[in-house]
Amino acid sequence: MKIYDLVIIGSGPAGMAAAIYAKRAMLDSLLLEKEYVPGGQVIQTYEVDNYPGLPKMNGMELSNRFAEHAKELGIETKIGEVTDINPDGEIKEISLKSGETIQTKTIILATGAVHRTLGVPGEKELAGMGVSYCATCDGAFFRNKTTAVVGGGDVALEDAIFLSRICEKVYLIHRRDEFRGAKILQNQVKNNEKIEILWNSVVTKIDGENKVESIQIETVDSHVDKMISVDGIFIAVGTKPVSELLKGRLAMDEQGYIVAGEDGITNLPGIFAGGDGRTKNLRQVVTAVADGANCVQSVERYLQKI
Amino acid sequence: MKIYDLVIIGSGPAGMAAAIYAKRAMLDSLLLEKEYVPGGQVIQTYEVDNYPGLPKMNGMELSNRFAEHAKELGIETKIGEVTDINPDGEIKEISLKSGETIQTKTIILATGAVHRTLGVPGEKELAGMGVSYCATCDGAFFRNKTTAVVGGGDVALEDAIFLSRICEKVYLIHRRDEFRGAKILQNQVKNNEKIEILWNSVVTKIDGENKVESIQIETVDSHVDKMISVDGIFIAVGTKPVSELLKGRLAMDEQGYIVAGEDGITNLPGIFAGGDGRTKNLRQVVTAVADGANCVQSVERYLQKI
Repeated sequence: MKIYDLVIIGSGPAGMAAAIYAKRAMLDSLLLEKEYVPGGQVIQTYEVDNYPGLPKMNGMELSNRFAEHAKELGIETKIGEVTDINPDGEIKEISLKSGETIQTKTIILATGAVHRTLGVPGEKELAGMGVSYCATCDGAFFRNKTTAVVGGGDVALEDAIFLSRICEKVYLIHRRDEFRGAKILQNQVKNNEKIEILWNSVVTKIDGENKVESIQIETVDSHVDKMISVDGIFIAVGTKPVSELLKGRLAMDEQGYIVAGEDGITNLPGIFAGGDGRTKNLRQVVTAVADGANCVQSVERYLQKI
Repeated sequence: MKIYDLVIIGSGPAGMAAAIYAKRAMLDSLLLEKEYVPGGQVIQTYEVDNYPGLPKMNGMELSNRFAEHAKELGIETKIGEVTDINPDGEIKEISLKSGETIQTKTIILATGAVHRTLGVPGEKELAGMGVSYCATCDGAFFRNKTTAVVGGGDVALEDAIFLSRICEKVYLIHRRDEFRGAKILQNQVKNNEKIEILWNSVVTKIDGENKVESIQIETVDSHVDKMISVDGIFIAVGTKPVSELLKGRLAMDEQGYIVAGEDGITNLPGIFAGGDGRTKNLRQVVTAVADGANCVQSVERYLQKI
């Protein structure tokens, strides 16, 4: 049975970058894609204007560029869903849903993260048409418009402050009567004239034809309904990493992010993690591709030692 | 006098990425370029085939892409050589050679690094034509060819091992009779049939017309001359960061790299460092752009606190 030097699980920017670096390092490697359309989370993004050198791409285009680059280098890819990993020993085993088993000396987990959703009507339908999960990515498209941010943690507060510099007005909608986010951010939000806080409120519906036009709000205590006109809604109720694999074996933080520094080294020898799924400050395409490259360097160093 | 939110010093990939992120975050920022041709070290590279999404670019092209992207976003740039920085207090002062002074709340140092050179005849003339300072970048162009690596540290050993997978033969030229690099790497080099070690030897000359054809070697002890035919020479005698600014104030390692993690935070409040000039494992375009983005996030967090 063939033993790979490296199997990369996940075909978003981190996985693609790892595959490119691995190929150039002449490692015998395989890129495992879960779905027929590779690309990860970025394919849901409106427009990515912060990947240097490729301005104003939509997420799908950017992802295609990565895939083409990988293809040009002749990277071996396989479509398959991983059901189990045995990380023990020098040769690791990956089980696929198809029943197939793959053997490899190292694994890079680039399985990414997914944004938590509100699960309300209109959210799915208007995703990418005013419904966004990333103010840093999409905020610039709402210059002088009215937007809403949903959430009460650091990210929601930072998003509201960020958007207040761009938008005419920002509603900050939070289901509790106090924020979880840092005090200093709370003060800034409260002192910001452009931000109107709606406490004890939840979004029950997002309306609009081909683009967000308004949202329905309900107060948690008194159940009063209210309609607000907005051009965009930023949902910042957290992300969840895709890290079901190796749960219990791999060190993770309380949210399930795989504990790894910029070198991608995890607590399990030969298992590396990069991209949105690892513990880090900034989850962006640029930081994901850097992770891919860093992980391959760690793989090379590891292989030199076994 | 105008006070910027952020001044970015250096216009390589890290500086350009920082400028792009800063603009999108609507920070009032300025990008300082030292030279009329921006781009940093990457412009010396043959071909960059490991920046995902932009395959097979030469370094200059890639750099131009970054500059165009920045230009499209309307980033404010200025050509000027920084002679001094006063990092104290909330408002920092940057002095330019022209005599001008710039005030800013934060600074990102993206001043990069330069490769140490041998300083022998032919080295400058044949740079990019067989003389390379980066095996990871350029190794793939020497498939089945003969190359030489100069140096005795980790990087030189890793480069020789890396190149042995690609090239037919690799000479490893070291001026001492033992390596400084890790034992495990030393063993691998010594057991590698493709690698021939030339101890106690220095390169005195690089020859060739429009491309490297041979090198002159001299033994340190007996001063015997020898000519070797090679298609490429990889000089791995170290890099040196461009970090003269703030020397003595900014924490640096013994080689002069600015001590900063992936968030770019240095020991001086409001001063951030990214790109090849900071302490890190992998100095590549992808990791530099990630640093630029990470630094801007740290700048934003810092500005929210002052």
